[in-house]
Amino acid sequence: MDRYDIAIIGSGPAALSAAINAKIRNKNIIIFGARNLSNKLIKAPKVDNYLGIKDVSGTELMEAFKDHIDNMGIEITYKRINNIYAMGDYFALMSGQEMYEATSIILATGVEFTKPIKGEEEFLGKGVGYCATCDAPLYRDKKVAVIGYNTDAEEEANYLSEIASKVYYIPMYNMEKTKGAGHLVDNIDIIKDKPVEVLGNEHAEILKMKESELEVDGIFVLKDSVSPGELVPGLETEGPHIKVDREMKTNIKGCFAAGDCVGKPYQYMKSAGEGQVAALNAVSYLDQMKNS
Amino acid sequence: MDRYDIAIIGSGPAALSAAINAKIRNKNIIIFGARNLSNKLIKAPKVDNYLGIKDVSGTELMEAFKDHIDNMGIEITYKRINNIYAMGDYFALMSGQEMYEATSIILATGVEFTKPIKGEEEFLGKGVGYCATCDAPLYRDKKVAVIGYNTDAEEEANYLSEIASKVYYIPMYNMEKTKGAGHLVDNIDIIKDKPVEVLGNEHAEILKMKESELEVDGIFVLKDSVSPGELVPGLETEGPHIKVDREMKTNIKGCFAAGDCVGKPYQYMKSAGEGQVAALNAVSYLDQMKNS
Ligand SMILES: Cc1cc2nc3c(=O)[nH]c(=O)nc-3n(C[C@H](O)[C@H](O)[C@H](O)COP(=O)(O)OP(=O)(O)OC[C@H]3O[C@@H](n4cnc5c(N)ncnc54)[C@H](O)[C@@H]3O)c2cc1C
Ligand SMILES: Cc1cc2nc3c(=O)[nH]c(=O)nc-3n(C[C@H](O)[C@H](O)[C@H](O)COP(=O)(O)OP(=O)(O)OC[C@H]3O[C@@H](n4cnc5c(N)ncnc54)[C@H](O)[C@@H]3O)c2cc1C
Repeated sequence: MDRYDIAIIGSGPAALSAAINAKIRNKNIIIFGARNLSNKLIKAPKVDNYLGIKDVSGTELMEAFKDHIDNMGIEITYKRINNIYAMGDYFALMSGQEMYEATSIILATGVEFTKPIKGEEEFLGKGVGYCATCDAPLYRDKKVAVIGYNTDAEEEANYLSEIASKVYYIPMYNMEKTKGAGHLVDNIDIIKDKPVEVLGNEHAEILKMKESELEVDGIFVLKDSVSPGELVPGLETEGPHIKVDREMKTNIKGCFAAGDCVGKPYQYMKSAGEGQVAALNAVSYLDQMKNS
Repeated sequence: MDRYDIAIIGSGPAALSAAINAKIRNKNIIIFGARNLSNKLIKAPKVDNYLGIKDVSGTELMEAFKDHIDNMGIEITYKRINNIYAMGDYFALMSGQEMYEATSIILATGVEFTKPIKGEEEFLGKGVGYCATCDAPLYRDKKVAVIGYNTDAEEEANYLSEIASKVYYIPMYNMEKTKGAGHLVDNIDIIKDKPVEVLGNEHAEILKMKESELEVDGIFVLKDSVSPGELVPGLETEGPHIKVDREMKTNIKGCFAAGDCVGKPYQYMKSAGEGQVAALNAVSYLDQMKNS
């Protein structure tokens, strides 16, 4: 298996800035993220605080970023990382059943604002899951509901539909108006309703919504990001944020973090600046490893 | 006298990013800096690590920044700040004989790489000075040498020439090729030689250069920036850098810092990100002051 120098998790401004800086330093990188780069980027109606690029929409800013990484030959791997394990001198990154290895990692996963649904946390691991491609085998010939917060969730639902007997898809975004939305396979039922609560006994059994209910064996809640502590066991956090020092080092050797996931203010420029610092310190770390 | 909400010292990426963010939050700001924004900006032959603006020269990046601040109606005050005093609930900023007041300050002065000339530090305050407009009165009808590291130094030399009996100007840049250079008044002698050492007894007397010597009463060394501890008495530093926390706070209440002056890596994006964080925390500080 290839072992990358640096794996970057995320594709917002923090991740992209890390990627260009690591690439300039000739490191062998892999970057995992979303097709639209960042939901938060494309949602901004108007951005006027990114120095040097005045008066743009979030989508235009996203395009400027895309143009920059394309120009440098940086390609994003459109996969979600579900778990990362620190193995000593390298990291193992899991995406569903696939594994990747990297000597250092940069977490640039953003923050998740979505409040959990009632019962979601209670039934987590007992019928409620955050990674469809990881847990799909558990639901062979069973009924599952997928609550999708972004268009990437549609692909996970499609994958599930090959294994489960029935998949219900509850889009938490406007399926007609969102770019890249609406590529679900035919045998998935789309339910336009608002999830309210997960009910059950030992195990989740019912997804209660505003207008109706679904009787299911499993419920996947697919958000933009999972909490950092869940992603990387052993990572030191402060509330919803990853704890870092001024060099963007976390408590785990070789693990750096940048952007919204390390704290406020939540802003593009701050994220991009931190991504750069994280990348340059990851480069130093790699150089030290080589010389020791 | 007007008391500004925020005074920003410097006009590189850290300062400009701070300015646009403070302005968006409707703060009354003043920003002190250089006509070309930053010598370090215009000197970069090629910049490819500023996310979203690909493959530009430093001058082109500078123009994008200029365009952005112009668009927001931000004007730079082309003055150098020589001393800043913390007065409790505000700061007094000295530029030569002029004084400005601000409730909070953001230091974004960059770092100075220039090594001191032999004897420069020894004779500092004893004939060697860093601020011509401050110390000019001491040199009425005397002979002074001005070692200018940037074109702004020419204005200080012109001012000195009205008071001193003789001014020698030693440009440390190419006077023919540097934008904005060459506006010295006629009675100043331009000496194209390399300063090597300051000599004297109690007081500086001779500026020794590679090819020749000058007998003078005073020598001004005008660099891009003075050391932060000299600029703001009481400021906590770590080597050449200002000590800050992740919120860009220094040890002095209401005093924030960003960019190269707070530490490595020395980069545009990192500087701009930190400028933003400094500005937003200065805004919080102002709001707290108002509510207390
Ligand atoms: C409506 C709106 C308007 C805004 N306007 C502005 C503005 O005008 N100016 C400003 O400065 N800021 C603005 N912001 C804030 C800005 O969007 C964020 O600060 C910025 O996007 C944070 O960048 P980031 O790189 O940290 O993370 P994000 O941009 O959130 O990107 C993180 C990316 O990583 C991906 N990801 C997460 N976990 C994984 C994983 N496990 N595997 C693979 N990929 C993963 C996510 O899908 C996402 O694409 C706005 C935000 C919103 C919501
Ligand atoms: C040749 C060269 C090439 C470079 N290339 C790159 C590159 O490709 N990519 C990259 O990311 N970085 C590059 N850098 C580094 C980059 O230039 C710096 O990191 C960046 O300019 C720092 O920004 P700053 O805002 O902290 O300070 P600066 O850009 O240094 O700006 C500080 C400004 O404040 C002014 N100032 C200082 N003190 C005072 C005062 N008391 N009163 C009034 N004004 C004051 C100064 O005159 C100056 O204009 C390069 C640097 C050099 C020298």
